[in-house]
Amino acid sequence: MVVYGDMQSGNCLKVKLILSFLGIEHQWIHVNILENETKTSEFLAINPNGKIPAVMLDDGRTLSESNAILGYFAEGTDFLPLDVYQKAKVYEWLFFEQYSHEPYIAVARFIQKYQGMPESRVEEYQSLQAGGNKALALMEQQLSTSAFLVGEQPTIADIALYAYTHVADEGGFNLSNYPNIQRWIAAIAAKKGYIGMQG
Amino acid sequence: MVVYGDMQSGNCLKVKLILSFLGIEHQWIHVNILENETKTSEFLAINPNGKIPAVMLDDGRTLSESNAILGYFAEGTDFLPLDVYQKAKVYEWLFFEQYSHEPYIAVARFIQKYQGMPESRVEEYQSLQAGGNKALALMEQQLSTSAFLVGEQPTIADIALYAYTHVADEGGFNLSNYPNIQRWIAAIAAKKGYIGMQG
Repeated sequence: MVVYGDMQSGNCLKVKLILSFLGIEHQWIHVNILENETKTSEFLAINPNGKIPAVMLDDGRTLSESNAILGYFAEGTDFLPLDVYQKAKVYEWLFFEQYSHEPYIAVARFIQKYQGMPESRVEEYQSLQAGGNKALALMEQQLSTSAFLVGEQPTIADIALYAYTHVADEGGFNLSNYPNIQRWIAAIAAKKGYIGMQG
Repeated sequence: MVVYGDMQSGNCLKVKLILSFLGIEHQWIHVNILENETKTSEFLAINPNGKIPAVMLDDGRTLSESNAILGYFAEGTDFLPLDVYQKAKVYEWLFFEQYSHEPYIAVARFIQKYQGMPESRVEEYQSLQAGGNKALALMEQQLSTSAFLVGEQPTIADIALYAYTHVADEGGFNLSNYPNIQRWIAAIAAKKGYIGMQG
């Protein structure tokens, strides 16, 4: 199996984490977004949407969308509950992550860390702070009542939200305002098989 | 069971469609976003993120995020494949919808149809057209090789993408450029139990 990704990307880190936690062997091929390596015809044959991460299984079938990839590998493991309602709560957090969290926190981080805060994006960067803090506040609220986002054991909801939350300071978000998130970040980072972001 | 929603919202239409296709009885409570009815303390107790649709089950447990709600009701039905890979492909489209489709097509529709294209948002509206057309082109590409987005039978991927695609013209997108999408829209609308958007 081959994973196409970049270990500086939170979306790619999600895939690395689930594979590492589950001990699933894979080849990791580094793809450089900034050099448009996701827009080549070879890459678009793997993911027509031109995004990483993407996975090619041993039989040549492909998968994209980080959170769908998480679901694929988590099926049948402790990272995805069997109970239909609990499973839906996990997916609730996964969709929350893509719509209400990543577009604020990951984008602010990209502008600050990778683009070096160009003048043309300062206003947009500032406008992202409220949405990002709202997302963090909703996580803080949940994590004040349970150890992990869905219950007392980690699921792929935690892996997905961990990815950009643990580096939210790189997008201007102050995690010291969120003590339960800090406790939760430490619990995930202490888990056997944990791998951190690179770069 | 109670569903909180607005039948002019594509995200809410998704829930109405799966319940209608499956013949699941429910009470529908209309919630008016424009009058901030999603920001009351009563509503925030149901969905702390302050968004519709939201569901309250008979035992009082709640669910939000339209695509997570679809997954909840589809589990064990023909609308969600049992095969782990096929199921992941369905979720791939669901995450695509929330990240690469809805933020362009639904937002352009909101600016044009509900806000009457205010001068302050014209530039944003125009900037959304490229992303929306890219999303439609990816759907068209898939629908040129299969009857529905994942295989030959409708799944919740089709319900989720149908919601804002079939009214994409209200956001300035010309569906006559996408013949396979038009064929697919007609197939969904012809399905027993189909209910259309209102208003």
